[in-house]
Amino acid sequence: MRAELIMVGTELLLGEIVDTNGPFMARHLADLGIDVYFKSTVGDNLSRLQEVLKKAFGRSDLILISGGLGPTEDDLTREAVSLAAGCPLREDPEVIRWIENRFVERYGSLTAMSPQNRKQALFPAGSEIIPNPVGTAPGFWLEKAGRIVVALPGVARELEAMFRETILPKLRTVAGEEALVIRNLHFAGIGESSLAELLADLVSAQTNPTIALYASGGTVRVRLAAKTAQRAKAWDLIAPLEAEIKRRAGAYFYGVDEQSLEEVVAKGFLERGLTLALAESCTGGLIAHRITNIPGSSDFFLRGYVVYTNQAKIDDLGVRPATLAAFTAYSAEVAREMAEGVRKRAQTDFGLAVTGIAGPGGGTPDKPVGLAYIALASAENTTVQKHFWRGTREQVKERLATAALQLLWRTLSGLQAD
Amino acid sequence: MRAELIMVGTELLLGEIVDTNGPFMARHLADLGIDVYFKSTVGDNLSRLQEVLKKAFGRSDLILISGGLGPTEDDLTREAVSLAAGCPLREDPEVIRWIENRFVERYGSLTAMSPQNRKQALFPAGSEIIPNPVGTAPGFWLEKAGRIVVALPGVARELEAMFRETILPKLRTVAGEEALVIRNLHFAGIGESSLAELLADLVSAQTNPTIALYASGGTVRVRLAAKTAQRAKAWDLIAPLEAEIKRRAGAYFYGVDEQSLEEVVAKGFLERGLTLALAESCTGGLIAHRITNIPGSSDFFLRGYVVYTNQAKIDDLGVRPATLAAFTAYSAEVAREMAEGVRKRAQTDFGLAVTGIAGPGGGTPDKPVGLAYIALASAENTTVQKHFWRGTREQVKERLATAALQLLWRTLSGLQAD
Repeated sequence: MRAELIMVGTELLLGEIVDTNGPFMARHLADLGIDVYFKSTVGDNLSRLQEVLKKAFGRSDLILISGGLGPTEDDLTREAVSLAAGCPLREDPEVIRWIENRFVERYGSLTAMSPQNRKQALFPAGSEIIPNPVGTAPGFWLEKAGRIVVALPGVARELEAMFRETILPKLRTVAGEEALVIRNLHFAGIGESSLAELLADLVSAQTNPTIALYASGGTVRVRLAAKTAQRAKAWDLIAPLEAEIKRRAGAYFYGVDEQSLEEVVAKGFLERGLTLALAESCTGGLIAHRITNIPGSSDFFLRGYVVYTNQAKIDDLGVRPATLAAFTAYSAEVAREMAEGVRKRAQTDFGLAVTGIAGPGGGTPDKPVGLAYIALASAENTTVQKHFWRGTREQVKERLATAALQLLWRTLSGLQAD
Repeated sequence: MRAELIMVGTELLLGEIVDTNGPFMARHLADLGIDVYFKSTVGDNLSRLQEVLKKAFGRSDLILISGGLGPTEDDLTREAVSLAAGCPLREDPEVIRWIENRFVERYGSLTAMSPQNRKQALFPAGSEIIPNPVGTAPGFWLEKAGRIVVALPGVARELEAMFRETILPKLRTVAGEEALVIRNLHFAGIGESSLAELLADLVSAQTNPTIALYASGGTVRVRLAAKTAQRAKAWDLIAPLEAEIKRRAGAYFYGVDEQSLEEVVAKGFLERGLTLALAESCTGGLIAHRITNIPGSSDFFLRGYVVYTNQAKIDDLGVRPATLAAFTAYSAEVAREMAEGVRKRAQTDFGLAVTGIAGPGGGTPDKPVGLAYIALASAENTTVQKHFWRGTREQVKERLATAALQLLWRTLSGLQAD
């Protein structure tokens, strides 16, 4: 089965919106083993939209359209599909009653209702109406001459809900058992090229599942993609490969699929009943922000300090002025005192500290921009890491926060942090 | 001039990558007054790529291609353009020398160089080679039968650099003086619908510039777009409208174009030589993170506290246990003591505090999820705001951080905060 995506909206062609509906539908189609060969983006223009639709009718079995279902003059998807498929528009009595009811509820009568508002009740003859559980524009599913045309509104929240609730189950029936099953494994504390070396023979030998590595912001994702005639069999292909990858690089493995590093760290703290306090200098609150994004983090993360001045490091963390004077704020010695100080002050099991130079200003030949120290103090000992990363201020913050979360995670996993 | 974008790459059709190259080029083309009528996305497949190219040749004057210029078998853009335009591929002697030099530098000889590596020196006859200042794949600009075809690598960093340095200046010559000039005005502390009411007659009366409102995460953007035959004249159209909008809603205006709220706040503190300390409960470090993203923020932001427990509020900010017991941590009274306490402890001009319930857990009938208080203390007085927002944990954090930055900005502007 060959699918094609059509994204409708002038704002997409002006670059004012980044299309996420296309990737969303494409991922689900890939998951069903349906090949997407083309994606076309077109503005709110009837003749160009028709041109794109006709082309799609000529080459694809399944055509998924996003956008152009609203009540305004610019919303032309229903007209274009009607013309391209040769199915005249018909007003659906149930949908028109529903629209009328909304007007009565809101305005007390139908006098405010214009012909424009009736437009959303028009569908190409023979369509099945796709309900919209979170908005006003219903979609439709039209089968004509061996082709399936699906039209959904462009608002991502609405499209995603309708796709999940109605389109996906219908497509499963249509697509059959053939499937592409994807498994993502996440690694931290190891670079993309080092991990690629560990897995080189697997990557070159494997054809099904395929293996691909993707690096981003200090972590590496290994993507296993298995093509299979029967969905249930895909795991037989993936499981042995996943086991072999974990055997080789298990020390750096932290999670699967949608799991984030902060989620894994939070789970580690909560499962062990341990507590954490943070002392952040150059990351400026980002580690606290990432940890507090996880629901329930208040059960283990008790407090954080953003100590942007030497005085704050002295007042709040008990860093000694002599240490600051001897080694500067950007030193292993100060990182250690920060971590131990915050742990003591907050009376937590762990104290994590980061100090460094995020840039773009503030660097010196001895202490360049991108230099940083991360320290983790527990009752038993204190670990200090030195880091050096080039990048923008925001990149340096992000990489350091990820490195600090890695240190936490590896310590919690009972592994030697490096 | 009609332009069309062609995005090449199977990973785009699998939904594994969100296309940002298309929007990037589209924005620049809109800015030049060049209309983009179609964007096509196609996989790494020679016949389908050729099909898309032929269609584009038939209907567009300018065709911009992203991707498919690498050295692997999957990289097919040069072959497809060669076939579609009828221009045989020729090896460029300068590019081949450059590739050979890289091999000698890296491996000491040419023995490691394969025929695949020579591929990146092939260009359709008649092409102008577009240098790649940040990567290995050069692009090309081909004029044939009144059409212009531009091919650039798919790596965003490379495409953007090449587009800015070489393509944009060349397009300016081609496009002439006609232009669409965009001006974005940013507003905070006012909802989209209230701002729309203030500007309703302007929005409906204006055709050039057009006015559009966009809400996102607690701020509203007003976009003015002027079409003009001469770029220099666009400001004559925009300036009087911008002045009228500021006359009506100036109290909520904070910046233009790419300016962020935190940038405006940072500028306000630095210009006035004032200092800030933060006490964050439910925003969990996000305000500190946003402020410390701004270079130079260490000159006014001295320290922040993420006080996730009552004990931390007592220890670090001097909140009275009696206040916590009487009103709970989610109260105007505690917000006030937090703001005044952090200002005193850090000895800053301003102390800003946020306390509330980000959810999803922790709500009660009296104090539901989404309830929050923001307090700003100065030497003169303390302002306390009550907020209530529905949304996910991350949305509530984001909205509250934006509201807190708004309060700072309006106070700095010498305006009454509401």
